[in-house]
Order: sequence, then structure tokens, then C-alpha cells
Amino acid sequence: MKRRPLLLGLAALPLLASGCATLQQPDAPLVGTGDLGLVVERATGSVLLVNTTHRSILARVDGLGDLSHASLVFSRDGRHAYVFGRDGALTRIDLLTRRITAREQQAGNSIGGAISADGTLVAAQNYTPGGVKVFDADTLALRADIPALTADGQRSRVVGLVDLPGRRFIYSLFDADAICIADCTDPARPRVTRIDGIGHQPYDALVTPNGRHYIAGLFGEDGLALVDTWAEQPVARRILAGYGRGQQPLPVFKMPHLRGWAVAGRHAYLPAIGRHEVLVVDTTTWEEVGRIPVAGQPVFVMARPDGRQVWVNFAVPDYHRVQVIDTVAQRVAATLQPGKAVMHMEFTPRGESVWISCRDDDKVVVLDTASLATQASLPARAPSGIFFTARAQRMGF
Amino acid sequence: MKRRPLLLGLAALPLLASGCATLQQPDAPLVGTGDLGLVVERATGSVLLVNTTHRSILARVDGLGDLSHASLVFSRDGRHAYVFGRDGALTRIDLLTRRITAREQQAGNSIGGAISADGTLVAAQNYTPGGVKVFDADTLALRADIPALTADGQRSRVVGLVDLPGRRFIYSLFDADAICIADCTDPARPRVTRIDGIGHQPYDALVTPNGRHYIAGLFGEDGLALVDTWAEQPVARRILAGYGRGQQPLPVFKMPHLRGWAVAGRHAYLPAIGRHEVLVVDTTTWEEVGRIPVAGQPVFVMARPDGRQVWVNFAVPDYHRVQVIDTVAQRVAATLQPGKAVMHMEFTPRGESVWISCRDDDKVVVLDTASLATQASLPARAPSGIFFTARAQRMGF
Repeated sequence: MKRRPLLLGLAALPLLASGCATLQQPDAPLVGTGDLGLVVERATGSVLLVNTTHRSILARVDGLGDLSHASLVFSRDGRHAYVFGRDGALTRIDLLTRRITAREQQAGNSIGGAISADGTLVAAQNYTPGGVKVFDADTLALRADIPALTADGQRSRVVGLVDLPGRRFIYSLFDADAICIADCTDPARPRVTRIDGIGHQPYDALVTPNGRHYIAGLFGEDGLALVDTWAEQPVARRILAGYGRGQQPLPVFKMPHLRGWAVAGRHAYLPAIGRHEVLVVDTTTWEEVGRIPVAGQPVFVMARPDGRQVWVNFAVPDYHRVQVIDTVAQRVAATLQPGKAVMHMEFTPRGESVWISCRDDDKVVVLDTASLATQASLPARAPSGIFFTARAQRMGF
Repeated sequence: MKRRPLLLGLAALPLLASGCATLQQPDAPLVGTGDLGLVVERATGSVLLVNTTHRSILARVDGLGDLSHASLVFSRDGRHAYVFGRDGALTRIDLLTRRITAREQQAGNSIGGAISADGTLVAAQNYTPGGVKVFDADTLALRADIPALTADGQRSRVVGLVDLPGRRFIYSLFDADAICIADCTDPARPRVTRIDGIGHQPYDALVTPNGRHYIAGLFGEDGLALVDTWAEQPVARRILAGYGRGQQPLPVFKMPHLRGWAVAGRHAYLPAIGRHEVLVVDTTTWEEVGRIPVAGQPVFVMARPDGRQVWVNFAVPDYHRVQVIDTVAQRVAATLQPGKAVMHMEFTPRGESVWISCRDDDKVVVLDTASLATQASLPARAPSGIFFTARAQRMGF
């Protein structure tokens, strides 16, 4: 593991302290939280606290365990992050004191989670043992333990968990071909609505930006399962029958991440599985209306917040490239090589910049999305996921 | 002027201080800024600092001058608010220290402004003298003074100013029938693109949530002017020829606020002028596709962030009512009477609650948008505009 000297946060603090020097605490500077974020350093179990206004690193927080495939959510005040580790740990970080303030070994194997719109409940989706655990956001006390079961009573792995309005969570059961909605209005008595027979082996899912449509990708067959969560009696219907690995499966170097799907205007942009294409789907009919050739097997396909651009990164061996799709022209407008092994991208809230993690170059680069010029290059240890606090204000993140 | 004892912030602080008591400063508690907001108290030149998680009042900041028709924007870190007073003053408030940190008497009569996406520039739109002034967000130093002129060289009042990506601002000239885009990439040399002949007397405007379409309402004739800001050479085209006061004008008790227009899915919901109706417009064709009867002359027509509901308040004499439109059923689903003289509404970022200012009851009420139950009632002196820090993360606010 390469290690290089890190520009640690204290050097950046004078930038932030103008006008309030007398009030500043050395370990807890007085700052707004709207322009903060965390970068996951997957190999070292650490995260970097970053500032998107000054494009700087403020601090490193260690001791988070196994962060391969880690994700996190933020409290609605933007002060705390809840990190879901692959090893089943749930860790709360205080972005102001820059410390871990709570940590629970809540499962043996976990792969993400969500926070309720009112900020009171944090839900983790677990592989081992399969199910959903719901925690008090303030104390991390267990509030609900919802098992996920197959027809014959075995535990199922849970994937694709996202928040819905009203203390509800929706998620998919990989081993049970089902989608569930858990209403935790009273966490002591969660009410679970289950939709069975949605398709074979849902492996990941997303909810559209307005929180209405939940879409699960299927590992075991072609097509996707769509649930209109606004319906009185939600049902699953199959869409995009041609989406998947096909009857003669192509080699797939990395399954695309569904949460990255971009909705821009009335179109959604989807990573094709195995093919060097991005699919364009009409979100009113959920039918494919176009395909855009790209430079490799797409992994994340993400819309800039205004929907004018869609950015794409790729699976090995093309993961040194990033492409920018112009959504008006419906074609690739630029091909970039920001660094080795691009793992993730995150836009600033209004989209003027994008942060890109280049794992094998141990750096995060920041680009101006209009000029495509490099605005900053920040050292990081094998960075993967990048998460900004503005996610707290949005559904389905 | 009625005054009543106010539940001041210090009582609410213990709620926020859990876990960091030793770090807390009496006048600058360590808090995240993602769940803060300001309520304008128009008659007393003050604002209330509020917290949307605890639904509490944290502090009052006085000394803001004439706040009739005041609006404000937030810095991208959520720490500072820039208040545009009707008297032409621009005031910066620090939400953490709860103090005014800068104040400039920048014009004789002003009616709002915007902040650039990168957070560096604050622009004020002025009536007297007519034009746009651009300030450094950190120091409030004047960076650009852009006059707005009629064809014969007179000053025009400026209205409908909003931010566009890339340090640009778009605004309308009431007295010159024009729309201008000022690119302040280099504030010392702003480049202004002007579109003339857009229609008579643009009086207010909005930009769609994705920042693409700028729409100005016309006071002097029917219809609206639409500019596609993504076009290489932006032009104005007329839409909704029937929108306006008509050839035999109806009495209009209050011109609707255009910034309140709701875009939900592919539809925009517009307040009819003078009529007891909300117009439904298809945002792909910009043609009217329906009208929904409501309880009075609509003023603000605002979509809950998920677009499932649209909330409407009204001009005198119906301003004690609020109606909730179900966007799936396309009809009014509830009529509420939250208090006297409803001035404004603001949704929490994910839409689980709405805050409503009831000026003549000296209160702000908070409602659960799902159950419509009252969650809180907070004392305020003649409250009008309500602004939450999540606006910093969005375009066109």
C-alpha cells in the first residue's frame, strides 16, 4: 500500500476562520456544513473530510473498519454522517468535531443504508444475517429488526434499500425475488408490505429523484422491476425486457451501480450491462428510446444536477476514462483521462464542479463541468466513494 | 403593532447540545446548518433564526431596515444569509454567531437578488437607480455595477433576477421590454447579452428547477416570455397567449409571485391572474393542458419537493385559506385554514413538513404534509417570507 504525505486539514483552517477568529475552537471550528463532504479511503478504513468551496481537505478520520463498497448518509442538519461498512459496522462521524461519536457492529456483512426524511431513523440493509435493522439516529439504539425471508423461511440478502416519504424504506430481497416497503412510523411495530414474484435475483435498485418510481435490476434474468410507490396498492411491472446480460451473456467486468442512474428531463440514462453503451429511456413510458456508444462498460452514469450533461465512468480495462454526454445532442461531447481507476464521481450541489476519485493514483481531482479544466487535485489513499452533505436534502440517496 | 413575549432561542439550545457540551459557546453553538432557516418579520425589520428538525426558534436578529417584500439567499456553506431589503440595503447575517456581519446601503429601492453557483458573487436587482449591482460575497465590496437602460438611455427597473450556471445572472427590464444575461466570469468586465422586444412590462420571472427555461410574466399584455438559456443564441418566444389579465381586466388584488410556480413531473402549475384557478401547463410544449378551480386568487403555487402535492395560498379576501392539490388526481384534495393572512409557505427539503407564515395571527405554523396535522405553532411578529438553507443547494432560488 503506497502512502504519501497528506496535506492535513489544519493548514486549510485559516481560510475558513476569517471574521470569527475569537470564536474558533482548535478541534471544532465554527463552520457551515453545506459545503462539506466525505471521501472514502477504502483500503485504510478512513475517510477524508473535504470542503467544496475551498476544494480542500480538512481532516482524516480513521478507525472505520472494512470500507470496501462502503456508503454513507447524512443527518438532516448536515452535521453527522452514518457510514455503512462492508463488515456490518454502522459508524457515526461528527463532521464538526471530526470524530467518531458512535459505532455499532450491527451485522456480519452489510452493503448500505438510508435515513428517514425526518432524520430520526437510520436503516441498514444486511446480507448476513439477511434483513433490515433500524436505528435511532441520535443514539444508534436498535429500534426495529426486520428479517427478510424466502418462501421456505430462510434469510434473504437485502439490497437496494432507499428511503421513501414518511419514515418508510423500500428494499429488495435478492434470494426471495421480492420487493418490500417497511413503514416505520411506529418503529416498535413496523408494517411491511411485500410484493412477490418481481423477477429473479434483484441485485440493486434506485428510486427516481422525485421518490416515485423504484426500479430494481435483475441479476438472474433480463429486464427490470418497476414499482410506482404512489399507487394505493403498489405492484411490480417488468420494463425494458432487453436490459440485462441477454441469452448469451457477455462478460461483465463489473455490474453497474444502479443508484448512479441519471434522470435528466424526461429521460433516464442507464448503463448497459456488458455493452459499451448508455441506454436512453423515456420515463413516461419506461421504453428505450435510444443508445449512445461509449468508451467501455459503464459503471456510474450520473446527471449533472441541471441535466445538461451526463457523466460516465467504466469498468476495467477502461477505468482510466470518463466521458461526458451532452443530453441535448444525445452524444458524447468529451472524453477525459483524469487518473487511474476512476471509482466514483460526485457533483457539487449546483453542478459547477465534479469530484472524481482515482483510486490507483491516490488522488481526487476536481473539474469545472463547463470548461472541463482541472480546479484541484487532492491527495487521498485509494479513494472510492465521494459524498457531499447536500445528499441530506434529497430523496433516495 | 402587537407584541407578545417570544420564546427565545436559549431555551431550545439544550436540545442541540447533546454530546458536545464542553465545546459549546454561549453565543455560537456548534451546530450543522442544513436544518436552519430564517423567517422575515416584515414590520419590525427583524428575522427569526429557526431549526426545522426541532421546529424551534433559536434567535431573533434585529436591525435589518425595511423588510416589506424582502427576500434572501444563502451562502453555499449554509452559514450566511444575504438579505435584500426593500429600502435598498444588502445585509449579511451569520447564522452561527447570530449577528449581522455586514450591511451596505446599495440602492434606493431594491426587490431581491441571487447568489452565483460558486458562492462568490451576490447580485442585487434594483428599482432606484435601475440596474444590477454585484458584490463580493465575502466582503460585500462592489464588484460590478451594471446599469439597465431603455432605448432612449433612461434607467429601467430590474425584476426577476435569478442565477444561471457559471457566474451568470438573468433578469428582466420592466421599463425596457428586455431580458438580459450578465456573465460575470470576470466581474470587472461583465458581458451582457440582451434580448429586446420580449413583451410589454415584464414584472417578475422564474427559472425552471433545472435552470434551463427562464419565464417572465408580462404586466402590460397577456402571455409570457420564455427563454431557453441552453440555446447558443438565446431568444424569447411568447407562450400561453391567454395568460394574463385579458382584454377586459379582472380586478387583481395581488399579482401572483412567479418564483412560486411549481414544476411537478412534466407539468407546471401556474397561478391564474385574477381568476380563481390554477393553470396546468405541459413543460415540453409550454401549452395549457388544464385548469383547476381553487378558493381564491392564487398568489404562491408551490410543489412539494416530490411533486405529489401542490400547495396554494390566496390574495385578500381569501388569504386565510391554503389548498392542497393532488397532482395525480389533478384536483384540490384539502382546504385548510392555518391562520390569518397567509403570506408564504416553505417546504422542508425532503417535503415532510411545510412552514406557513400567518401574518395577522403573529405566528408560523408547521404542518405534516402527509397527515396535514399541525406539528408546531411558533410565535413571530407579522411573519412573511420563510427561507431554509437548503435553497443554497438549488438553482433559481
